Amino acid sequence: MTDCLIGVLGGMGPLATADLVQKIIAATPAERDQDHVPMVVWNVPQIPDRQQALAGMGPSPLPVLLEAVRALNQLPISHLVIPCNTAHHWFDALAAASRAPLLHIADATLAAMRQPIVAPSEITGLIATHGTLRAGWYQQRLAATGCEVLEPTPQEMDELFVPGCYAVKRGARVEGGILLEQLADRLAERGASRLILACTEVSPALSAVNSRWLAHSIDTTQALAQACVELWRQSRT
Amino acid sequence: MTDCLIGVLGGMGPLATADLVQKIIAATPAERDQDHVPMVVWNVPQIPDRQQALAGMGPSPLPVLLEAVRALNQLPISHLVIPCNTAHHWFDALAAASRAPLLHIADATLAAMRQPIVAPSEITGLIATHGTLRAGWYQQRLAATGCEVLEPTPQEMDELFVPGCYAVKRGARVEGGILLEQLADRLAERGASRLILACTEVSPALSAVNSRWLAHSIDTTQALAQACVELWRQSRT
Repeated sequence: MTDCLIGVLGGMGPLATADLVQKIIAATPAERDQDHVPMVVWNVPQIPDRQQALAGMGPSPLPVLLEAVRALNQLPISHLVIPCNTAHHWFDALAAASRAPLLHIADATLAAMRQPIVAPSEITGLIATHGTLRAGWYQQRLAATGCEVLEPTPQEMDELFVPGCYAVKRGARVEGGILLEQLADRLAERGASRLILACTEVSPALSAVNSRWLAHSIDTTQALAQACVELWRQSRT
Repeated sequence: MTDCLIGVLGGMGPLATADLVQKIIAATPAERDQDHVPMVVWNVPQIPDRQQALAGMGPSPLPVLLEAVRALNQLPISHLVIPCNTAHHWFDALAAASRAPLLHIADATLAAMRQPIVAPSEITGLIATHGTLRAGWYQQRLAATGCEVLEPTPQEMDELFVPGCYAVKRGARVEGGILLEQLADRLAERGASRLILACTEVSPALSAVNSRWLAHSIDTTQALAQACVELWRQSRT
C-alpha cells in the first residue's frame, strides 16, 4: 500500500469515468504495472440526474453522492476527484464529508492551462451544462487571467449541447460527437479560437468523430488526469 | 444503492482493467447513465508481478491481493471479478477470503463460447502467460467440449508473448500488438483457426494495431464483461 491512492467518485456518466481512468494511465510515465497511479474508482451511475436536479426537474443527487463519498473514505484514499463538472455544484458539501481532500476540476483545468501560457487575447468557448455555466467556475477563473469567455446560446444548448451530452450517456458517441462538433463550429464562427470542454461527456464524443476541435481544446478530464499523475509523482519523490 | 455492485480487483495491469470497464459499458443496453452496470474498481497496480512470482523469481502477490479483497469487501459489493488470467492462480485463496462470490474468468469465457456454438473440430490457439498455460484452466475446459488446443512454443513465448505483454504494461500498445500479432500468425500457420486471448493485455494490444485476428478471437476480457452485464440484467428482473 502506498500513501497515494486516488479515489474517483464517478459514474456521471460511466463512460466519462472510464475516460478519466484511461487518460490517467496514458499520462503516466511507466516502465511496468507498478509505476502506474493507484486508484479506486466508484463507477456507480445510479445517481439522480444532475442536470435535471439543477433545473428543478428531479431529486437532488446529494444524498447518493454523500453515500459514495463515505464508501470511498472507508478505503485508504489520499485524495478524491470527481470526473463530472456539473456534480461540482455540490463540491462544498462533498468536501466537508470527505476525510480525503477533494480536488476541484476547474482548479486542475486552470493549472493545466498555465503550461504552456496561452495568449489572454484569445476568446475561449466554454462547452458545459446549464448548471456548470450558471455556476461560473470557469468564467470567474478565466476572468481573473484576463481571458474573454464565450458561452453557447440558449438555442445551441437545447439543440446541440443537451442532446449531444445525453447521446453519450446512452452510448451513442458518434451521434453525440456530430452534435457537439456543430456546437464547436458555432462558437468558432462567433470568434472562439479555443474551447474548454467543461463537461466530461464531450471529449469521448469528439474523439469518436476524430474532431479537429480536440487539437484546439482544453479537456477538463485530461487536466484532472494530469493533476492525479502529479499527486502520484509527488508521493514517490 | 442496488443489490448488484460488481467489485473489480484490477491493476494487473491497469490498462487491462480499464479495458474491462469500457467493455462492460459498451456491452450494456442503456438509455441513460442509470441503466449502466454499477461497479467499484480497485485499480491499484502496486502488486508483485504475477508472472515473476510463478516463475519463482519474485515475491508472491497473494498478501497484497488479499488486502485488496478485504478492501473491496468493506464496500457492499455483490460479486468480485479479476481482469487478469494469471492472478487466477490464487483463485481459491481469494474466493475463500471474499464475502462476495468470485467469478472465474475461464468459466465466463467458456460460457461466452457456447453462444454461438463453435465447431468442435476447430483448432483453438491459446495465448496466455506461462502461469495460465501451466494451470490448464482453458485446456481442461476445452478438452471437455472436445476442442483441440494449440499452445505457443517456448521460443514463441520468449520472443513474442512475454515482450508483447510487458510492452502493454509500459504503455507501448502498438509495439505489443505487432509482437502478439506475429504470435497469432504462428499459431495460425500450425493450424489454429481461432484464438483465445487468455491474457487481458492481449486484446488492447491487438486493438492498437487493428489486428485482423480480433475477428477470430475469443477475448476473455469481453467474456468477463458479458458475465458482469448478465449479473446486472438478472438483478433488475
